[in-house]
Amino acid sequence: MVIIIKKEDILKAVEKVDVVAAMEEGFIQYSKGNTVVPPVGELLFEEPRGEAHIKYGYIKKDDFYCIKIASGFYDNPKLGISSSQGLMLLFDQKTGQPAAVLLDEGVLTDIRTAAAGALAARYFAPRDPESIGIIGTGIQARLQLEFLLKQTDCRSVWIWGRNEENSKHFKEEMGKGVEIHIARSPSEVAQNTRLIVTTTPSETPLLFADDIRPGTHITAIGSDTSHKQELESALLQKADILIADSKSQSKSRGEIFRAVKDGLIDEEKAVELGNAILNPDLRRKKEDQISIADLTGVAVQDIMIATAVYKNFINN
Amino acid sequence: MVIIIKKEDILKAVEKVDVVAAMEEGFIQYSKGNTVVPPVGELLFEEPRGEAHIKYGYIKKDDFYCIKIASGFYDNPKLGISSSQGLMLLFDQKTGQPAAVLLDEGVLTDIRTAAAGALAARYFAPRDPESIGIIGTGIQARLQLEFLLKQTDCRSVWIWGRNEENSKHFKEEMGKGVEIHIARSPSEVAQNTRLIVTTTPSETPLLFADDIRPGTHITAIGSDTSHKQELESALLQKADILIADSKSQSKSRGEIFRAVKDGLIDEEKAVELGNAILNPDLRRKKEDQISIADLTGVAVQDIMIATAVYKNFINN
Repeated sequence: MVIIIKKEDILKAVEKVDVVAAMEEGFIQYSKGNTVVPPVGELLFEEPRGEAHIKYGYIKKDDFYCIKIASGFYDNPKLGISSSQGLMLLFDQKTGQPAAVLLDEGVLTDIRTAAAGALAARYFAPRDPESIGIIGTGIQARLQLEFLLKQTDCRSVWIWGRNEENSKHFKEEMGKGVEIHIARSPSEVAQNTRLIVTTTPSETPLLFADDIRPGTHITAIGSDTSHKQELESALLQKADILIADSKSQSKSRGEIFRAVKDGLIDEEKAVELGNAILNPDLRRKKEDQISIADLTGVAVQDIMIATAVYKNFINN
Repeated sequence: MVIIIKKEDILKAVEKVDVVAAMEEGFIQYSKGNTVVPPVGELLFEEPRGEAHIKYGYIKKDDFYCIKIASGFYDNPKLGISSSQGLMLLFDQKTGQPAAVLLDEGVLTDIRTAAAGALAARYFAPRDPESIGIIGTGIQARLQLEFLLKQTDCRSVWIWGRNEENSKHFKEEMGKGVEIHIARSPSEVAQNTRLIVTTTPSETPLLFADDIRPGTHITAIGSDTSHKQELESALLQKADILIADSKSQSKSRGEIFRAVKDGLIDEEKAVELGNAILNPDLRRKKEDQISIADLTGVAVQDIMIATAVYKNFINN
């Protein structure tokens, strides 16, 4: 019996799930080598331009295997449709029988990505960040802030976006109970905050080594390919602690990939998030250390959130 | 709006589809290079043993892209569940929006495979096959016979299966309006027929060069991996005409792969099915020629049948 779960029911179910805890468990299993996650499948389209990615895998001795289809079709907004589309599938790991189709339209990817940012902050943010800094003003920027506000008592926020209009909308919509300042540059964000999340698809650095004050933690979310980059490579060289959600993915994408390619760090400098969660020695030792978490997105996050939503849905 | 199509509705819809014509169109598009079909994704499981394959692709300028998940879990029969499981997904090729989930449990793969066999017979069978020969007695053997009986007036059939009990069941169930003979060996099938379909997962040859009479056409269905083989390599050497559903897949799997590996044929001997459909010069020229079609299964077949079933379902 295959269960079809619609977006509205997914959103209701996910509210009852501790997604940050689910991510924590997923990254631990991943770093322990208890997951099977083959390379991502890819389909490219030319007219109109688009791409679909197929991510799949499972946690050993778990209940399900998971397949996620996520696509980006960049002309969709002209038609009034989100450029992101997709769904997740769960299959019984012991028989292969389909268990659930989650018609999430990509929201579970957005949510699990934001939850991973909050998880990184839980383990690496300085005790007093002064203010939270958010680079970017899109859906991921909003979700990161929403999740971070549950991790810290800090209620002061600095934001920067390329488009000033979008920054104003962000401030209006997210400003409840929070003091939001619009910065004139990413550098101004860095001068006023010590917990920064970058969420843009930028292909040239937005934050530079000289911008960053001692004690700052940065979570870099935007770069998930080989050509995207939000952080200057010298900033990764300057960091005391470097965390990758997936060391194997960092060989081909993200900020760490770029800094290694630029010859400024050795890939051995990075520790894997799941290992740092398990071992306090791999985390911040002094309050003035700079840490950077480079999150490229791992299939185990999809497996964890899809399974949690499914279980919550059928038990309610 | 995603449409979920259940197995019973799929079976009703597919009856109204000319699946052989759909396969013909699909193979033509494939051989013309009008399709995008990346390598198959694979997930392996150890406890219990199983495998899931993810096949995906699209025909350029068509309506949808298609993803098929098909799994084999070999302990399922102990639980009273079919070892084959799976579903197909259709997404809008212009926006990425999901259009349909076809909960076919693998039957569309069975049907499109049988339809490809019928298509090969349409273009390569001798005018008078005397009798139809079927090697194997499983679901694919039955479907191949069912589809072949629509291509030819021949109503005499010889079958061979490793398990005599299964052969008797086959004869009882498929014997309506058809005279079915149970052969004592694959060789006896070949001595009495000139249109043979092989449908077993055998890893050692069942039909040998010396068994086959002039004018015979063989469609080899069973071998879809590098280690399966139903036809002696010398038989492919002896054949006048050799057809592959996919020349690129023949580089790594199927009968042609084995014969090339054994050094008995050059891979250039094979012509691609879609090209042979388009060009009569690539087909049988004399009634006494021996032809072999090696069908390993191509994603374009899934795309064609899923799209046809979907269109039929929404228009009824």
